[in-house]
Amino acid sequence: MSNLTINQDRLWASLMETAQIGGTSDGGIARLTLSEDDKRIRDWLSAECAALGMKLTVDEAGNMFALRAGKRPDLPPIAMGSHLDTQPTGGKFDGVLGVLAGLEVLRTLEAAGYESEAPLMLVNWTNEEGSRFSPAMLGSGIWAGVYAPDYGDARSDVAGDTFGASLDRIGYRGAAKAGAVKIGAMFELHIEQGPILEAEGVQIGVVQGVQGMRWFELVLRGTAAHTGSTPMNMRRNALLGMAKVIEGIDGIARSHADAVGTIGFLEVHPNSHNVIPGEVRATIDLRHPSDAVLDQMEQQTQALVRAAAAEIGLEHRLDQISRTASVVFDAACIAAVRAGAQAAGFSMRDIISGAGHDAAHTAAVVPTTMIFVPSAGGLSHNPAESTLPEECAAGAQVLLEAVLHYDRQRAETRRGVTA
Amino acid sequence: MSNLTINQDRLWASLMETAQIGGTSDGGIARLTLSEDDKRIRDWLSAECAALGMKLTVDEAGNMFALRAGKRPDLPPIAMGSHLDTQPTGGKFDGVLGVLAGLEVLRTLEAAGYESEAPLMLVNWTNEEGSRFSPAMLGSGIWAGVYAPDYGDARSDVAGDTFGASLDRIGYRGAAKAGAVKIGAMFELHIEQGPILEAEGVQIGVVQGVQGMRWFELVLRGTAAHTGSTPMNMRRNALLGMAKVIEGIDGIARSHADAVGTIGFLEVHPNSHNVIPGEVRATIDLRHPSDAVLDQMEQQTQALVRAAAAEIGLEHRLDQISRTASVVFDAACIAAVRAGAQAAGFSMRDIISGAGHDAAHTAAVVPTTMIFVPSAGGLSHNPAESTLPEECAAGAQVLLEAVLHYDRQRAETRRGVTA
Repeated sequence: MSNLTINQDRLWASLMETAQIGGTSDGGIARLTLSEDDKRIRDWLSAECAALGMKLTVDEAGNMFALRAGKRPDLPPIAMGSHLDTQPTGGKFDGVLGVLAGLEVLRTLEAAGYESEAPLMLVNWTNEEGSRFSPAMLGSGIWAGVYAPDYGDARSDVAGDTFGASLDRIGYRGAAKAGAVKIGAMFELHIEQGPILEAEGVQIGVVQGVQGMRWFELVLRGTAAHTGSTPMNMRRNALLGMAKVIEGIDGIARSHADAVGTIGFLEVHPNSHNVIPGEVRATIDLRHPSDAVLDQMEQQTQALVRAAAAEIGLEHRLDQISRTASVVFDAACIAAVRAGAQAAGFSMRDIISGAGHDAAHTAAVVPTTMIFVPSAGGLSHNPAESTLPEECAAGAQVLLEAVLHYDRQRAETRRGVTA
Repeated sequence: MSNLTINQDRLWASLMETAQIGGTSDGGIARLTLSEDDKRIRDWLSAECAALGMKLTVDEAGNMFALRAGKRPDLPPIAMGSHLDTQPTGGKFDGVLGVLAGLEVLRTLEAAGYESEAPLMLVNWTNEEGSRFSPAMLGSGIWAGVYAPDYGDARSDVAGDTFGASLDRIGYRGAAKAGAVKIGAMFELHIEQGPILEAEGVQIGVVQGVQGMRWFELVLRGTAAHTGSTPMNMRRNALLGMAKVIEGIDGIARSHADAVGTIGFLEVHPNSHNVIPGEVRATIDLRHPSDAVLDQMEQQTQALVRAAAAEIGLEHRLDQISRTASVVFDAACIAAVRAGAQAAGFSMRDIISGAGHDAAHTAAVVPTTMIFVPSAGGLSHNPAESTLPEECAAGAQVLLEAVLHYDRQRAETRRGVTA
């Protein structure tokens, strides 16, 4: 236990203050990446970091890295952070909490005059949400070398505006090359975006990794025809085939422990009261912590689609449109979170992240883990997204404890090695 | 057999000539009711009827009635006709064929100097399609007393333009009161809009009646949540419930002979790749020739929806949004069609209309029936809608034979009565 205590009211006040930037009348935030509102929140963060005497570096993808010196400049910095952009119908906690809690940790350390061994760093990753420029987690992906900076720059929004031009326009194209800013470890606090912690009354999720994810686009094509004058035995109803796939995907997911499977997007053509659907498009979302199980689920999905199409005489096309491997977080980082939650006296449980996060990209490069706090009703990407002040503070306290625990452990190890 | 033969080329030429009025580049027609194109086709029809020496009456709903005198002005006229308006993506035959075939019958009689017993009448009903002003079959409904003229006038299109104002604007507000134009019987030739005649290689459908139809709006409400972070056992997936209903409706329809049941319209909220559907709306369309069977199907649908919602823990709302009773056509009219097809040497089968038609309204007031000819691939409301020249001519020939058969029969009966 550090004897340092997060200032819950200060953290909450910052959350509520910044929620006005891009704030919507229904209590949410619409702060799309690289928008004018994104510039405003970035300017706000820059000023807060400057007030703490931190040195800000921005890289060519707009990722922001603010550094607080430690006792040992030879050690790579321990980073905290997440993202400040939101979905068009975003809430007040997704991403923002991870950045502002990191800021609160640094404010607390500064107020106490606490000096860490390694430097500490606060990070704001660009375009985590991916709702303006696809793919999601673009900034951390560029930093981690998953995407080339040129690829990032060329991403276009629906209006034809590019990522690169938008970055230039708001003045957050930094001089640092992608990946040039070195990090020793990454801790990302985030809301769970799921119902488990709330349902079990647990305060802290000790995140073990991120599920692998595979997305497919499915098109089923039959024959559009009049609902009144086409006998049942002469129909090729594409929606009927899709109904079988919807149920089948649910069944496949339920047949594997820890799996999820969903059709969330579905479009019917011509979508008229009195026309049998001639074509239906949908996206299938499969996730599991194990890539081997995902392989099985993918095969079962292919068989399911073939069977449903054959039964009704439909044409089908199943294309994989996105794929992320599962991620296992760093054991030492996880141990630090567990020690931090224990020291602070919070209840905890191991949990797997079902959503993608910047931490999934950093984990491929540096020791990384995440900390989850409850989401009321499991809601996110929703103005009604809600995490209580004490829950936010608990997450920030565990973040502080974990980072300092990890800092002490690593400094000792390094001393051991160099001794 | 009348020894009178329809002029196939003349009929086809009129179909192709008028298809230019509102014609679309993909070979269809977009001739919305009471549009400028509707005015043009009405002007064309008026001129053709005038050329045949027929007297045109237009009623207050814009319905057009052209009269050709018979030997016995004491008999009410035998009417032929359908509608000249189309869907926005209409084809060249739906409705138009019934009017132009009636015109061709009259041209054939005129050329041969044939004098019928009763007067003959050609009718163009206003707004059969209902795609600009809801409800469909409005003109015939006003004529039959189903709708008040004021109700019709107040119908509004999406631009806020009313039926009444549009009628005045194109100059087809007639002086005749709704229902004042008396008809003795009604024969409507129409394309099948279904696949049965083509599939069985049959030339003429002897229409027995129109299916009863019930439409319901179904809303299933669960909880929108993240597809990645919401375990399968904590979901309330509205689309999964709808999948069960889609399959169930198909099953209910297949369990009753001659029934059809379809979900053609479906809307998912929020309809995002990575959000479990929180709400799904759909329209359920049930049809059967017997209202008693429809009662059963409706009860089964209610039970299906309740069970699907209960299984997943969804809220549900099932509202009836439209209901038309089944219609049984007049036995003497049907017999006349059968005699006509036999006399002309065409193959025929009894058939039930799955679509609504103006004839369904007139049947409540006067002896009525319909004649169907094949629709290639069962297609309608589609630019690819297709019926061959010889199929159109066969329909017109049967129309001619049926009308003259009915005329002779009725004149004899009346003579019998008055003798």
